[in-house]
Amino acid sequence: MKDVAVIGIGCTVFGEKWSHSFRDLFIEAGALALEDANLSGEQIDSLFVGNMSAGRFIEQEHIGALIADYAGLATEHTPSTRVEAACASGGLAFRQGVTAVASGMADIVVAAGVEKMTDVAPGQTVDTLASAADREWEGFVGATFPGLYAMIATDYMHRYPLTREQLALVAVKNHYNGARNPIAQFQQEISIDTVISSSLVADPLRLFDCSPITDGAAAVILAPLEIARKYTDTPVKVLASAQASDTIALHDRRDISTLDATVAASQRAFHQARLSHKNIDLVEVHDCFTIAEICAIEDLGFCTKGEAGKLTEEGVTALNGDLPVNTSGGLKACGHPVGATGIKQIYEIVQQLRGEAGKRQVDAQIGMTHNVGGTGATVVVHILGRS
Amino acid sequence: MKDVAVIGIGCTVFGEKWSHSFRDLFIEAGALALEDANLSGEQIDSLFVGNMSAGRFIEQEHIGALIADYAGLATEHTPSTRVEAACASGGLAFRQGVTAVASGMADIVVAAGVEKMTDVAPGQTVDTLASAADREWEGFVGATFPGLYAMIATDYMHRYPLTREQLALVAVKNHYNGARNPIAQFQQEISIDTVISSSLVADPLRLFDCSPITDGAAAVILAPLEIARKYTDTPVKVLASAQASDTIALHDRRDISTLDATVAASQRAFHQARLSHKNIDLVEVHDCFTIAEICAIEDLGFCTKGEAGKLTEEGVTALNGDLPVNTSGGLKACGHPVGATGIKQIYEIVQQLRGEAGKRQVDAQIGMTHNVGGTGATVVVHILGRS
Repeated sequence: MKDVAVIGIGCTVFGEKWSHSFRDLFIEAGALALEDANLSGEQIDSLFVGNMSAGRFIEQEHIGALIADYAGLATEHTPSTRVEAACASGGLAFRQGVTAVASGMADIVVAAGVEKMTDVAPGQTVDTLASAADREWEGFVGATFPGLYAMIATDYMHRYPLTREQLALVAVKNHYNGARNPIAQFQQEISIDTVISSSLVADPLRLFDCSPITDGAAAVILAPLEIARKYTDTPVKVLASAQASDTIALHDRRDISTLDATVAASQRAFHQARLSHKNIDLVEVHDCFTIAEICAIEDLGFCTKGEAGKLTEEGVTALNGDLPVNTSGGLKACGHPVGATGIKQIYEIVQQLRGEAGKRQVDAQIGMTHNVGGTGATVVVHILGRS
Repeated sequence: MKDVAVIGIGCTVFGEKWSHSFRDLFIEAGALALEDANLSGEQIDSLFVGNMSAGRFIEQEHIGALIADYAGLATEHTPSTRVEAACASGGLAFRQGVTAVASGMADIVVAAGVEKMTDVAPGQTVDTLASAADREWEGFVGATFPGLYAMIATDYMHRYPLTREQLALVAVKNHYNGARNPIAQFQQEISIDTVISSSLVADPLRLFDCSPITDGAAAVILAPLEIARKYTDTPVKVLASAQASDTIALHDRRDISTLDATVAASQRAFHQARLSHKNIDLVEVHDCFTIAEICAIEDLGFCTKGEAGKLTEEGVTALNGDLPVNTSGGLKACGHPVGATGIKQIYEIVQQLRGEAGKRQVDAQIGMTHNVGGTGATVVVHILGRS
């Protein structure tokens, strides 16, 4: 297997992009990534695109071909493949790109993610997102994602010491980081009171415990590490790429507030990279809800179960803490265009490792990403390092 | 890159499976493939699943995790990834599986395809299939696939010598083969008159020029060639895996009755395998409509443009011809559960190369598959050989 590096990155501003179509979004992100790597389109060997549900959001399937076409690559007949794993689609697109380069089947590969979520009526958005859960056993009885994660939060808070204020601090921290990220959907700091006094969505989760509905796209370019310096002075090496599955329905789990697929993917990633937790300088975790960040920190193994609330309160996960978590603002503040999120996480880690993160910059040699589909039925973990 | 072999195959009977859910279908195909390779589920390292539009057909995304779960692999946390490229989803799932094994990232890999198309109202089925075309430039103005392929047929018949009878003979041949295939949706022979007197769908295409709406699933198991004989006495080697894209909208093509992506994918496959057309003993092509088989035979390079009608009439593509085409019955008679079709093509070629094709058996050392998404915006070509 060849070593693989990220040689270019691009991302749109995330938000409600009423003036941008699905096509506009990925073209913008892709063009930024190509420019970053000093490449032109015809040098691309292959594309992998993460997208959750364009079929339902914009009535369009066959997303890989659509993207190759609108990127001007139809005359090159460049292979282009869509992968889907709900909100982990972006992370899996990155993983397919890594596999293609590692295998030797392709050299210059684009891994992208895109979602246009605002072009449907609000009820349809929630119902489409619910198609990431078990439709027959969860969706048909009315369960939506705020409801499912509220069950996780309720179970967690019953069993472990986590206060309402500690949970709110996850959102406060991520908004603080988002306020320093020019691509973030929400660039405003908030207080604990903002969270606690916001509308109740699904007890105990309130509006500011939830990530928003977002349009956006992100793209990164991969190449064999051995030729990466032809394109960039700051290649970022892929140290591990790991994936794990679990039951799609929450009620079938051994334990609903421990994501076993996060535990498995994390262990596989550390094993591949021959690294331990103390080597990780920062991590982008999948905080679709505040409780998800609490579980992620623990299930990735950065502390024991029940400790992440205290860690958050002590500032360990803050920008200036020992383990900065979600320096991008996370899904909560940066926004969550579901198919793009996994690639945006890579985008953030690469910016940090290159020293290009501006007001969010932390001191980092090695970073991790953690991308979740559904309530944890798919988890993808990557470890990236300076090269 | 490691050499890759197919070590197990399984397929459901194709048809209108009113008593089988989406979940039932893939479990049946997967279990047959595992049994064929003498494997149990926990030996699987990774799954890739081709599916076009479960999001619209059964309101369920996150298909990879769903399948791993219902296959009993949640406790193993086995990675499972859905890939989508409209009707080429199955071919691409196979290609991702080949890449994963070739790279060394996984040893035992399941590549599967599944589609449940009959659980929606008929109008919705056609509209969902149309999401494989360019929704903004084709779908919104009312173009559906029979209409798009009718334009290809009209253009072709204007420019090249193809009679209505020759076109009908494609369906006659494929029904003849389907009548000898126990998994085929239609196991009845038909006459030229059946085709020509059937209802007009989109001039010149009639009902019997069109592949049907089908439920079904297929699965194959891949392993490194070097360990394949641990599992089977008849491994089938993957000699080439090639993919190409083109414009998603038909009207943007250089030539609407030549599928340039088929030409490109075919050339890439022959180059990879270091083989020429005379080495290919049989081919499964993507005959979603009769005209599509005519174009495929030519665009794959088996004859010059305009000759495939004559070839069909002369029996060259028949079961006892020099180049048997669609011995399975093709999409026309075997059925076309869109996400499963690409895997069913592999299933047929492996049966033929093993000598297990019963009444359809031809003399074959090397076979080819050709899987198309949309009107040719994605094309996947594989070459397989006895090992």
